[in-house]
Amino acid sequence: MSWYDRKGPNDDIVVSTRIRLARNLRGIPFPAKMNKEQFEKVNNIVKEAVLNSSAPIAKGLKFIKMEDIPANERACMVERHIISPAFAENYQNRAIIISSDESISIMLGEEDHIRIQIILPGLQLEKAYEIASLVDDMLCEKADIAFHKELGFLTECPTNLGTGLRASVMMHLPLSSESGNFKSFIDSASKIGYTVRGLYGEGTKATAYLYQISNQITLGISEKSVIENLKVIAENLIKNEKELQSKIDKTKLEDISMRALGTLKYARIISSSEMMQLLSNLSVGISAGVIEKDIKPFALFIEGQPHTLMKKYGEMTAADRDIKRAGVLRDVLK
Amino acid sequence: MSWYDRKGPNDDIVVSTRIRLARNLRGIPFPAKMNKEQFEKVNNIVKEAVLNSSAPIAKGLKFIKMEDIPANERACMVERHIISPAFAENYQNRAIIISSDESISIMLGEEDHIRIQIILPGLQLEKAYEIASLVDDMLCEKADIAFHKELGFLTECPTNLGTGLRASVMMHLPLSSESGNFKSFIDSASKIGYTVRGLYGEGTKATAYLYQISNQITLGISEKSVIENLKVIAENLIKNEKELQSKIDKTKLEDISMRALGTLKYARIISSSEMMQLLSNLSVGISAGVIEKDIKPFALFIEGQPHTLMKKYGEMTAADRDIKRAGVLRDVLK
Repeated sequence: MSWYDRKGPNDDIVVSTRIRLARNLRGIPFPAKMNKEQFEKVNNIVKEAVLNSSAPIAKGLKFIKMEDIPANERACMVERHIISPAFAENYQNRAIIISSDESISIMLGEEDHIRIQIILPGLQLEKAYEIASLVDDMLCEKADIAFHKELGFLTECPTNLGTGLRASVMMHLPLSSESGNFKSFIDSASKIGYTVRGLYGEGTKATAYLYQISNQITLGISEKSVIENLKVIAENLIKNEKELQSKIDKTKLEDISMRALGTLKYARIISSSEMMQLLSNLSVGISAGVIEKDIKPFALFIEGQPHTLMKKYGEMTAADRDIKRAGVLRDVLK
Repeated sequence: MSWYDRKGPNDDIVVSTRIRLARNLRGIPFPAKMNKEQFEKVNNIVKEAVLNSSAPIAKGLKFIKMEDIPANERACMVERHIISPAFAENYQNRAIIISSDESISIMLGEEDHIRIQIILPGLQLEKAYEIASLVDDMLCEKADIAFHKELGFLTECPTNLGTGLRASVMMHLPLSSESGNFKSFIDSASKIGYTVRGLYGEGTKATAYLYQISNQITLGISEKSVIENLKVIAENLIKNEKELQSKIDKTKLEDISMRALGTLKYARIISSSEMMQLLSNLSVGISAGVIEKDIKPFALFIEGQPHTLMKKYGEMTAADRDIKRAGVLRDVLK
């Protein structure tokens, strides 16, 4: 079972929690300047450190060379947010270490030598950081990680120097983001070093009211503080969203959500962006308790992604995917 | 069972056929100038002529004084197209003779003394005219109907002089009316004396692609010709609409119709105009055979009319009617 099919605390509003640690091995250039041998060296050092560890967490992990993953599966991994688009593109010599539910993944040879990623459903910052630390401990025990006593962990990009930590939560905020004080909230989060972005990056309007909130500062602040502050921000946003849910006209909300459910169950052609909007509308109704449905709407969104569809059903034009997507969503919601 | 719940030929495209005959009694002023006694005289003469007739058709007919019909039911009768809004408004002294399925109705004291109306589902012009003639025969046998050997039947408004006949069909033409040659069709129908109107009268854009086509000429043309020509026009329009159905992308059409069905089955708030649009979208899918559903969408439309809703469920604001309407439509389509 994938991490995104599992339940998590407050997962009606917090779609996922992600912790990323950037690490590099001492004495080897950054991946942008690495040759084949150096890639292999990095792969082997990390593989050995992690897979041969006696830590219980090491048991479920698998080392896979990216060349052994077919192109269509690589594209699906991007859609599942397991690897970055750049890593899928420049996959030669790279490798990944991954758990069966994909909640733990380690990209080898991305921007840094090592990118540890923990992704969990709902709001689970401490838990995700705890797992990331276990992985980090296995590494540091066996490998010589580049660390400077003043600068902390050394990374390719200076914005990651220090802790190498990026903590983020993906939140569904349809009511908060339409309320008047959302902009001032973003501004004050920014002042304490956190950014709020729409799903497809900064500056863009959020797709389906999905926002990613993450720390920008990795120097001069402890991992503990970064995570605690983000947790407070997320909890405040949950509280605010819930308050707005309790104030909104229930019939209107039920109407919006049930219409989305009706369309998902009956439509024959659904584009990617309409799917997101429908899942968003369905989600807010489930979150507010006006409709009962034992599903996690945003888990479905992976099923409707282009490459995930094509991996299952073969190559298709965009128009045919819209038809197939509608069929898949219908089947799931039957 | 109401006439509109019954099946009729081509009722997937022709919602209804209507025949109206305008008649007046000799020697009595037109209703606009009638006093109480004259109204009573007209009511009694027609009541006697029709209800005491030995014709089989007379058996199912009932005479009702409009004063004995409560205001909310009068409003519902307008919504069912049984009486005109003016007749519902100025109901004093007036009466109606009506069959149990409401396919036959005779307004007494509308613009003319006598307005015979036959309304049947689907395309049934000859049949409707035949029934109208039977009613007319009962009248003419017993009552002294104003008839001029050159002008024909005398009527209050000169546009009805002659046959006093208005034959009309209400057609659902979503594809034809969006096609390029619909305007030229309207123009040529107009040249031979027929008008094509949107549901809510000339000049307005058709609600839900419903068009009423009727003869404008009542002088110098026989009833038979009026009806035959209208039948040809209607049959051509059916053929054209069917041809367009066969050419349109089936998945697209299925998508439109199924979405309408999904919304009708799931929405919690539906306005009158949205209902019409949804029923129109559902109807075209049923007509084209892309979805199977043993219902007549436009029969549901009566159930969602404001006064019909309020007669069943009590006085309501427009906002509450939208909620009740959604509930009624959901129940019917369950």
